[in-house]
Amino acid sequence: MKILITSGGTTEAIDDVRKITNMSTGTLGSLIAQEFAAHVEVDKVIYVCAQGALVPSASCVDIIRVTSVEDLQDTLTKVMTAEKIDAVIHAMAVSDYTPSNLTTAEDMAAAIAKDLLEQDRLKAVDINSLADAILESIIKSDSGMKSRGKVSSNFDHLILSMKKTPKIISFIKQLQPSTVLVGFKLLDGVPEQELLRVGYELLEKNHCDFVLANDLQKIQKSNHVGLLLKPDQSYDTLNTKEEIAQAIVQNVILKIRAGEHHA
Amino acid sequence: MKILITSGGTTEAIDDVRKITNMSTGTLGSLIAQEFAAHVEVDKVIYVCAQGALVPSASCVDIIRVTSVEDLQDTLTKVMTAEKIDAVIHAMAVSDYTPSNLTTAEDMAAAIAKDLLEQDRLKAVDINSLADAILESIIKSDSGMKSRGKVSSNFDHLILSMKKTPKIISFIKQLQPSTVLVGFKLLDGVPEQELLRVGYELLEKNHCDFVLANDLQKIQKSNHVGLLLKPDQSYDTLNTKEEIAQAIVQNVILKIRAGEHHA
Repeated sequence: MKILITSGGTTEAIDDVRKITNMSTGTLGSLIAQEFAAHVEVDKVIYVCAQGALVPSASCVDIIRVTSVEDLQDTLTKVMTAEKIDAVIHAMAVSDYTPSNLTTAEDMAAAIAKDLLEQDRLKAVDINSLADAILESIIKSDSGMKSRGKVSSNFDHLILSMKKTPKIISFIKQLQPSTVLVGFKLLDGVPEQELLRVGYELLEKNHCDFVLANDLQKIQKSNHVGLLLKPDQSYDTLNTKEEIAQAIVQNVILKIRAGEHHA
Repeated sequence: MKILITSGGTTEAIDDVRKITNMSTGTLGSLIAQEFAAHVEVDKVIYVCAQGALVPSASCVDIIRVTSVEDLQDTLTKVMTAEKIDAVIHAMAVSDYTPSNLTTAEDMAAAIAKDLLEQDRLKAVDINSLADAILESIIKSDSGMKSRGKVSSNFDHLILSMKKTPKIISFIKQLQPSTVLVGFKLLDGVPEQELLRVGYELLEKNHCDFVLANDLQKIQKSNHVGLLLKPDQSYDTLNTKEEIAQAIVQNVILKIRAGEHHA
C-alpha cells in the first residue's frame, strides 16, 4: 500500500519579504505518517509537508516540501498522476485565501472615487447600488498581485486584498476516484453539533471516506479531541493525537483492504 | 561588555490560525552573536530573536524569544531599563505593518456606502473630496482588530487592513543614550547610491553609530553584500555574512572602548 499524507501549513507570499502562514506544526500529520510507516501492509508513505513542518523519522517515508497552495496542488497532481495512491490523508492546514493585491488606503480610496465618478454611479443613489459599485471597484484588482519586490513602508495604512484559493481536497478524488480520502476540518469554539454538521458537509461535498473534525479550543499539547466521521453518519471520539493517528490508520487500512477485496 | 542583538523576523497574528511573518532566518544575527560571544572583552550577549530564528551555540549567550513587534518593544524596554547595555545590534526584520482589521469585501463596500450616504458626501462631488471621504471610511476601523478566533472562509474576497507599527529602532537611544547602536536597512533592487542615501537617513534619524545597508538582490547563501555606514559618511563594503559579522564586532568594540575612555 502507498499512502500520501499532507501536513503542516501552507505559506502565501505577500511580497519578497512578507508572507502569510497558517499556523500548523505538522505534529499530527507526522504522527499519522509514523503510524502508517510502522504498519506491515504499508510499502511507502509520501509525506507532502510545509517548509517548517515536523517530519517523521521512519525510513520508508518520502518527504516532499511545498510552500503555497498552488505548489501543493501541482505536487499532488504530479504524484497522483504518476502512481497509484491507496489513501490520501489531507491533514495540511491550507490557506483559504491568497494575497491578490497590496495597496495603500489612499490609493484604494482614490481608485474607488475614480470608478464611482467615471461610471456615473453617484446619481439616484440607494445604499445597495452604491455598495455594489464600491464592491466592484474593490475586487476588480483581484486578477493578480501587481507589486512584488519589497513593498515600501512609508504609508500609514496598507490594504491587502485576498481571494479564495482553490479547494485542494476537491481535486483528490478527481485525480484518483478509488483512493481512500481522509479530510480534516478545524473550527474554533463551536458546539459539537455544529462541528459534526460542518464535518459531514465536507465529507459529502468532497467524497471523503472519513473526516477528522476538531476544534481549536480542544487542542492542547497533551490532549487533542478529534471526531472521526464516517459516511454512515457514525463517528468515534478520540482524545489524543496518538489515538487520532491510530484510529485513522486502522480505519483507512480496513477500507483499502475492503476496496481491494471488492475489486 | 554587554551586547544585545535582535535577530530573525517578527510575526503578527491575523487571527488564531493565520499570521504574517517577515522572512528572516536569523542567520546573520546568529553569526554576529557568535562573533561577539567569542570576543575576550564581551561578558554577555543577550540574543532577542523570533520563534523560528537560528540561535548561536556559544555559552555566554542569553536567548529571549519574542513574537510580535509589541512583544519586541516590551522586551527591549524591560532589558534596557534593568541593566546597562554597551551596544545594541538591531538585526531583526521587524514588521512595518500589523493587521488592524479583517473584513469581507462586501462588508467593506457596504460600510463605505453607508458612511458616504449618512455623511452626505455624495453631493457637489469632486474626485478629491470623494476620495477623502472614502479614505476616512476605510481607515476608521484601524483602532483595533474586531474579529479574532478563526475567521470563516466562506467569502470570495477578504480585505485585511494594516497599520504602521512603531519604529522600534527609534526607542533604543531613548532607553540608553550612551549605548552603541547598529541599525539595519534592507532594500530590494535599488542602485547603490539609493541604498546609501536611505541608510544614512536611518542612521541620522535614529542616532545610530553604524548602519548595515543591504539589498535583497545581493543576498545569496554564500555571498551577502553589506555596506557598513559610519556617521562621517564613510562606509566599508563587505561581501559575506562572516565579513559583515566581523566588521560589526570590530567597529562596535572600538566604539565602546572609545566611549569608556572618554567617560
